[in-house]
Amino acid sequence: MAPASSRSSDPRRSYKMTLAYDGRAYKGWQLQVNETTVQGTMQRALAKLAEPPIELIASGRTDAGVHALGQVASLKIASSLEAFQLQRALNSHLPTDIRVLDLVPASAHFHAIRDATGKCYRYVIQDGIVADVFQRHYCWFVPGRLDEVAMQQAADSLRGTHDFASYQGSGSPRKSTVRTISEFTVRRRAGEGGSFLVLEVAANGFLYNMVRNLVGTLVEVGRGRRSVEWPRSLLQVADRKQAGRTAPPQGLYLLRVEYAGGT
Amino acid sequence: MAPASSRSSDPRRSYKMTLAYDGRAYKGWQLQVNETTVQGTMQRALAKLAEPPIELIASGRTDAGVHALGQVASLKIASSLEAFQLQRALNSHLPTDIRVLDLVPASAHFHAIRDATGKCYRYVIQDGIVADVFQRHYCWFVPGRLDEVAMQQAADSLRGTHDFASYQGSGSPRKSTVRTISEFTVRRRAGEGGSFLVLEVAANGFLYNMVRNLVGTLVEVGRGRRSVEWPRSLLQVADRKQAGRTAPPQGLYLLRVEYAGGT
Repeated sequence: MAPASSRSSDPRRSYKMTLAYDGRAYKGWQLQVNETTVQGTMQRALAKLAEPPIELIASGRTDAGVHALGQVASLKIASSLEAFQLQRALNSHLPTDIRVLDLVPASAHFHAIRDATGKCYRYVIQDGIVADVFQRHYCWFVPGRLDEVAMQQAADSLRGTHDFASYQGSGSPRKSTVRTISEFTVRRRAGEGGSFLVLEVAANGFLYNMVRNLVGTLVEVGRGRRSVEWPRSLLQVADRKQAGRTAPPQGLYLLRVEYAGGT
Repeated sequence: MAPASSRSSDPRRSYKMTLAYDGRAYKGWQLQVNETTVQGTMQRALAKLAEPPIELIASGRTDAGVHALGQVASLKIASSLEAFQLQRALNSHLPTDIRVLDLVPASAHFHAIRDATGKCYRYVIQDGIVADVFQRHYCWFVPGRLDEVAMQQAADSLRGTHDFASYQGSGSPRKSTVRTISEFTVRRRAGEGGSFLVLEVAANGFLYNMVRNLVGTLVEVGRGRRSVEWPRSLLQVADRKQAGRTAPPQGLYLLRVEYAGGT
């Protein structure tokens, strides 16, 4: 159980892990001193199962309060357990708001960030008169009635390859702000607690707060305050201050991460 | 705004109120000293809207941790607000885990307990390998796979008029333990977070813990530990200790309350 001293003698096995978490109790994925984060909580559970060093790398950070239905992480750990045993042991050490949904052996080279070819996020909005008591931490309640047809038209106009600088949150600039949105759907789903809009957006990558800025902008269209053409016209101005407000975190879910070859 | 001194001069108006609540934070409906209850929380909100006396009577108690999708209460309050204004004002004073879904004028004689002709409860179970992080406070997770066909057959055998003494919780005996179950369904619903069984049972009345005892007993059938005939055979023995365990509160929802004439 000695730590690996060189790559060639690394006793650790590599895994691809799929995670769900309720982001409500966490200050996001990323390890932070004196804050409860998903990564920190995962690392404490992993430390009970094997000697260090343990490497855990998620496909990307999620922000405080954001949820995951299919976060993917690469894991290197010196454990002799079979994958299904490791999954079970890990779930038994994790709080119930984080679950390992899947854990499969991966190539020693698998890297959850570097190998990701795309991601898909979901954003859930409830509109109407009375907010559902059971969904209040899991969606954004927007009073009134949103026009989902106009929102879908605006979403369609954003598909393709564009410079999304207008939709980039401040504080985390990227070298290139060009991204390709391959899918952007707005669907109304009637539930017992009310009526919900489920937005899903897939792209080869996302800028900081891009999904929440896109959603905040589409909601302005859905409210009738802005035209269907407005969200696309914002691409030209490349100025974050022009776009709609940033939608709150509790409606956002990392739905899936895509890898080449489907792995 | 003086309190009513006699019935004939009672300045209060009567309403029928429909409520949803997330029971997680509450020690049930019923007012208790030094405990946070739904009734206590409602009464504090109502006290901000009118002078006493205010009368608030729910169709029945719900236990600690039990939820409501359609609890009904009768309300007498000396307010000059229109019903929709009163609903809105009340929701603005209530925490977001309690919502007034509907508030309509009612006869001065309307009484939420006395006039109820039946109730319907829902109980949600998740079975499978990994518990859904988003439903963990809103269902009972039962590891493995339940046989919903056997559970439905057992549920069918309990329909009709029977002495349900074997399914009555201790501590709250009723004069008669005979009740009529008019509907008892077990449906499997696939969700993203897993697979769920949704049980719904309607009756002209329920004994203390009756739904949770029925569910705990049906789960024994679903697990294959007991025969399909066993739940009905328990009716004969009239002994609570013979039945299955009491299912936990977080899967239980008061779905609706029925009144004669549909009011």
